[in-house]
Amino acid sequence: MDERVREHAEILVDWSARVEPGDDVVVSVGPEAHELAVAVAEALGERGANLLATYSSGELQRAYLQAHDGEFDEADHELALAREADVYLSLGGGRNTSATADVPGEARNAYREARQDIREARYDTRWVSTVHPTRSLAQQATMAYEEYQEFAYGAIIRDWESLAAEMDRVKEILDAGSEVRLVSGDTDLTMSIADRTAVNSAASVAYDSHNLPSGEVFTAPAETEGEVVFDVPMTIRGESVRGVRLEFADGEVVDYGASEGEDVIGDVLETDDGARRLGELGIGMNRDIDRYTDNILFDEKMGDTVHLALGRAYDACLPEGESGTASAVHVDLITDVSEDSRLEVDGEVIQRNGRFRWE
Amino acid sequence: MDERVREHAEILVDWSARVEPGDDVVVSVGPEAHELAVAVAEALGERGANLLATYSSGELQRAYLQAHDGEFDEADHELALAREADVYLSLGGGRNTSATADVPGEARNAYREARQDIREARYDTRWVSTVHPTRSLAQQATMAYEEYQEFAYGAIIRDWESLAAEMDRVKEILDAGSEVRLVSGDTDLTMSIADRTAVNSAASVAYDSHNLPSGEVFTAPAETEGEVVFDVPMTIRGESVRGVRLEFADGEVVDYGASEGEDVIGDVLETDDGARRLGELGIGMNRDIDRYTDNILFDEKMGDTVHLALGRAYDACLPEGESGTASAVHVDLITDVSEDSRLEVDGEVIQRNGRFRWE
Repeated sequence: MDERVREHAEILVDWSARVEPGDDVVVSVGPEAHELAVAVAEALGERGANLLATYSSGELQRAYLQAHDGEFDEADHELALAREADVYLSLGGGRNTSATADVPGEARNAYREARQDIREARYDTRWVSTVHPTRSLAQQATMAYEEYQEFAYGAIIRDWESLAAEMDRVKEILDAGSEVRLVSGDTDLTMSIADRTAVNSAASVAYDSHNLPSGEVFTAPAETEGEVVFDVPMTIRGESVRGVRLEFADGEVVDYGASEGEDVIGDVLETDDGARRLGELGIGMNRDIDRYTDNILFDEKMGDTVHLALGRAYDACLPEGESGTASAVHVDLITDVSEDSRLEVDGEVIQRNGRFRWE
Repeated sequence: MDERVREHAEILVDWSARVEPGDDVVVSVGPEAHELAVAVAEALGERGANLLATYSSGELQRAYLQAHDGEFDEADHELALAREADVYLSLGGGRNTSATADVPGEARNAYREARQDIREARYDTRWVSTVHPTRSLAQQATMAYEEYQEFAYGAIIRDWESLAAEMDRVKEILDAGSEVRLVSGDTDLTMSIADRTAVNSAASVAYDSHNLPSGEVFTAPAETEGEVVFDVPMTIRGESVRGVRLEFADGEVVDYGASEGEDVIGDVLETDDGARRLGELGIGMNRDIDRYTDNILFDEKMGDTVHLALGRAYDACLPEGESGTASAVHVDLITDVSEDSRLEVDGEVIQRNGRFRWE
């Protein structure tokens, strides 16, 4: 086994999920993530945790959703599993990142809505999402396989504690601030962040961070006003999306457009009321992610980018007892802020053209 | 998709597991059983059942067991899943039938023992085990891949109702009988079957039958006396086992030997008290299984064979409220009865040299 696979598994289990002896762990395995799953199983065995592996395949999902009449029940067995789990590790990795591309948005949304309780129960665990670098992810990134492995392990196997210290500076500013303004090209957007708590997302549940790799500081904005254009291309639900433009009034999307994939954005916005509000404002700070690879897990952490998510807000950002944006979706969109851009907090510029004011 | 894969899935879901709308179904997927899993997902979607797929990999299992200190907890999350499930479909199929060959029997047994409640909960569902015909199963059978597919689908995709009618004749004799005697070569074994109910194992939960393919009539013997030699070769726990000889007194194994794999038999016998008793006497009646393929799912149903299992008895064979052989194991051993053999029930020969008395 490639030693990097074992290091990845150890960072995931120890740094990210803080697995303890006796933890009930669900490991969700993509069809091509087998090798990482073996390394994770070994790490879980060593730490005396209990392992249940689930199988997460886009092709299975597609076959099921295509055949179903769309009147979904919530699955009691899966809910019971999620409620009893202490840790949920998602090891993404399939053969085709477009495996569910032809599933109608309607079926997808109905399925997601029926599974709200399962999702909430999963969010109550120490959950972490990662990916095994596969050939299909390399292809999505338009990179050679070996080159992609180098890139992915570079972003994952790193000194997380020192990045956490850097990111803490941004968190402190956001925690103290009330209003954020993002200006960049055609974008001019203001959001309230009063009473919200920023997350220093250092790829560990100890930091309320649930992605590996991570490397972003994010919070949950409110009262969004203005217009934003997302110039980083993306694939959402298997479809290419380019040049998304959102216009907000009173915190809600009131107009939208896209140079490509406008239908997908429309599907997302129609999921539920929360899907038309922002659930997240994030600032990418992992400079080992130095290129766009068309994978949100990496792209949103890229240095010199800012992203916003439609839909669900993370509880960690909200005041105790307050429910932020509730939605069945959480769809991130990214904008490059390396040029002609500034990010202001309460009128003070904290980042200009990708450089923080202390740099 | 090969149309046989779809037919296999439909027989599994409809004939075998009797899936209904709203059923909570667990589908356990082997790493090479993906294609069958896709067809099963499609069938479950069509029938409006709820699907959770688990990942069943020998390599994962091995990594976990090798790394663990051997003090296993029962996994509460997996237990909750099993208790809430209505249906449990196991789709076997890996890359290497010896994937766990170097896991010590001790670790294996400790793991199995810790999971007794999970196993019992699973047996309370409409559970069915099948396999996707893989290259590794073809290799195990010393057959070409295409040839093996022909063989496997021949045994699986068939008229189960007509075989059920044939097998009912044998069930009636066993239900009415009190004592079975098996004589064949060096074998001379008597077993009590008084008050036991035989199962007409027609590959459907409607017949208390949980294997696809099936095609055997089995019951739970007691008070076993005598000696039996199993001349059909087998692979147990990844190891080759040949010429097993068991000697019984007062229902328990008092002496054993094997020309190959004696250690494995020793490991099995030491699992617990129940592992030294017989849990099953089965008569193979699926004549489409016309050759030995070193896979118990098929071999034990072969025409002209009789098999006995050490360990766990099936509740369906036992009088209401009676607990038969309780054990963490159920290990089948097979003997050829096509020549120089007879099977007697209460002194009357019902099968001689593989032919039933009415043939």
